[in-house]
Amino acid sequence: MTDIDEALKTRATQWFAKLRDEICAAFEACEDDVAAAGNPGGLEAGRFERTEWSRPAGEGAGSQGGGGVMSVLRGRVFEKAGVNISIVHGEFSEQFRAQIPGAAEDPRFWAAGVSLVAHPRSPRVPIAHMNTRMIVTTKGWFGGGGDLTPVFPDDADTADFHAAFRSACDTYDADYYPKYKKWCDEYFFLPHRDEPRGVGGIFYDNLDSGDWETDFAFTQDVGKAFRDIYPAIVRRHMDDGWSAEDTEKQLIKRGRYVEFNLIHDRGTKFGLMTGGNTEAILMSMPPLAAWP
Amino acid sequence: MTDIDEALKTRATQWFAKLRDEICAAFEACEDDVAAAGNPGGLEAGRFERTEWSRPAGEGAGSQGGGGVMSVLRGRVFEKAGVNISIVHGEFSEQFRAQIPGAAEDPRFWAAGVSLVAHPRSPRVPIAHMNTRMIVTTKGWFGGGGDLTPVFPDDADTADFHAAFRSACDTYDADYYPKYKKWCDEYFFLPHRDEPRGVGGIFYDNLDSGDWETDFAFTQDVGKAFRDIYPAIVRRHMDDGWSAEDTEKQLIKRGRYVEFNLIHDRGTKFGLMTGGNTEAILMSMPPLAAWP
Repeated sequence: MTDIDEALKTRATQWFAKLRDEICAAFEACEDDVAAAGNPGGLEAGRFERTEWSRPAGEGAGSQGGGGVMSVLRGRVFEKAGVNISIVHGEFSEQFRAQIPGAAEDPRFWAAGVSLVAHPRSPRVPIAHMNTRMIVTTKGWFGGGGDLTPVFPDDADTADFHAAFRSACDTYDADYYPKYKKWCDEYFFLPHRDEPRGVGGIFYDNLDSGDWETDFAFTQDVGKAFRDIYPAIVRRHMDDGWSAEDTEKQLIKRGRYVEFNLIHDRGTKFGLMTGGNTEAILMSMPPLAAWP
Repeated sequence: MTDIDEALKTRATQWFAKLRDEICAAFEACEDDVAAAGNPGGLEAGRFERTEWSRPAGEGAGSQGGGGVMSVLRGRVFEKAGVNISIVHGEFSEQFRAQIPGAAEDPRFWAAGVSLVAHPRSPRVPIAHMNTRMIVTTKGWFGGGGDLTPVFPDDADTADFHAAFRSACDTYDADYYPKYKKWCDEYFFLPHRDEPRGVGGIFYDNLDSGDWETDFAFTQDVGKAFRDIYPAIVRRHMDDGWSAEDTEKQLIKRGRYVEFNLIHDRGTKFGLMTGGNTEAILMSMPPLAAWP
């Protein structure tokens, strides 16, 4: 593997856990603060529950060791929100080596990251996804991003979500935002429906500018941007009521979310095919979805 | 293409439509006959609605022409049941030619078939799938099968479902049933969950014994076996009531069904990747599914 030292891996890993804690706190604060109209079922405020998983490293091609922590909130604002952190290591199997930078030379890898999907109960509150990760093979890089999937798109939400990521990007490189926004638009697209998953955001991968500190700072800023803007958007809408028709539209949109994640999402496919933790990977599935 | 003449294609196509009509009639009879306990919502008997789709043949690799008819029932016994017939032709794209018998020599193909998925409203009535098809490239063959996915497996149902297919198989070859049952068990399996989709049935493909008439007769008998046994199993349970807990289990089982179809099912992947009719292909999705 590359000479990225253990101290850097530790710093990245600690950051992913800290970001997880901050986002979980922001979500739980929404749970506490929702008004009666936004909680027609009269449910109690939800809290994240954590489950650790781990498995011993195997031997040879395709083996993976490591583990992670799933944090799941089943609440009144968030019908289901999952935030996973994981630190895994092992060897890529033959089929993956050619696709992964630096893995052809040496199949060993180390990877850590934080991954989040939020399925709000209210159809008026957008679904969101965020992920950031650090990968080490004979090369080392960061990847991540966030995207918003409203059932009822709202121009101000879309503009502010993008502005938050643009601000994180522009500090580092004026090319980042246009490039990563485009990547997001292309990636989160359902060709069989000929429709985008949502209103976009940013998506980046294989980021290795040659300056680890700067790339890590950028990755932190992407996480912070999401941590600040998404709960703010949730709060704009969480106190509003909604109709049964709104819910029907939400369930259909969630069905599209399922289609994207199971048919197209690289992370999901990669995880399931490399024997990742199924419960953690499929935490992204909505609590209820419809194909009427 | 092979010299299988148009008359044979027409006979197969007509059979698929006839089988569709007979199954639709059997399902509608269930809709008429359900007792009050099996229809707690007091819904009216459902009827199949048909939608034709077609598209002009394109040119060159990957092109497909033809069309089909979707028949969808949204009723009181069957919350959603879809029966599709299709007749398509065209050329396989480069990526598929190596995988399809006889397509490496000449990429042109013709295919017709009938495909069914039934999602009953009652968790006490098993989900079912059936498909039979005739394919022509430079070779010609039949494929198909049926499998049962109960939320609450019932030994008598499982035994009778298998016995029906065994009977269809044994008329032709004593090796068919054990071979096709095993194929079904291996095919309808969710490796990421380490669980079978349901209680099996039979699955066969590339059937070309050298005697088209016999293979066609077998394929008809497979369809007839399903046409007779599945509605009989539905009738055993459709008049029973169920609990909210039963429904919760049903929604989770349907989630697994979604996972299988979108992650593993060859027909679904093949259809979506070759630009098939998305609505027809995803007719197999349950009306509502849960990942709690």
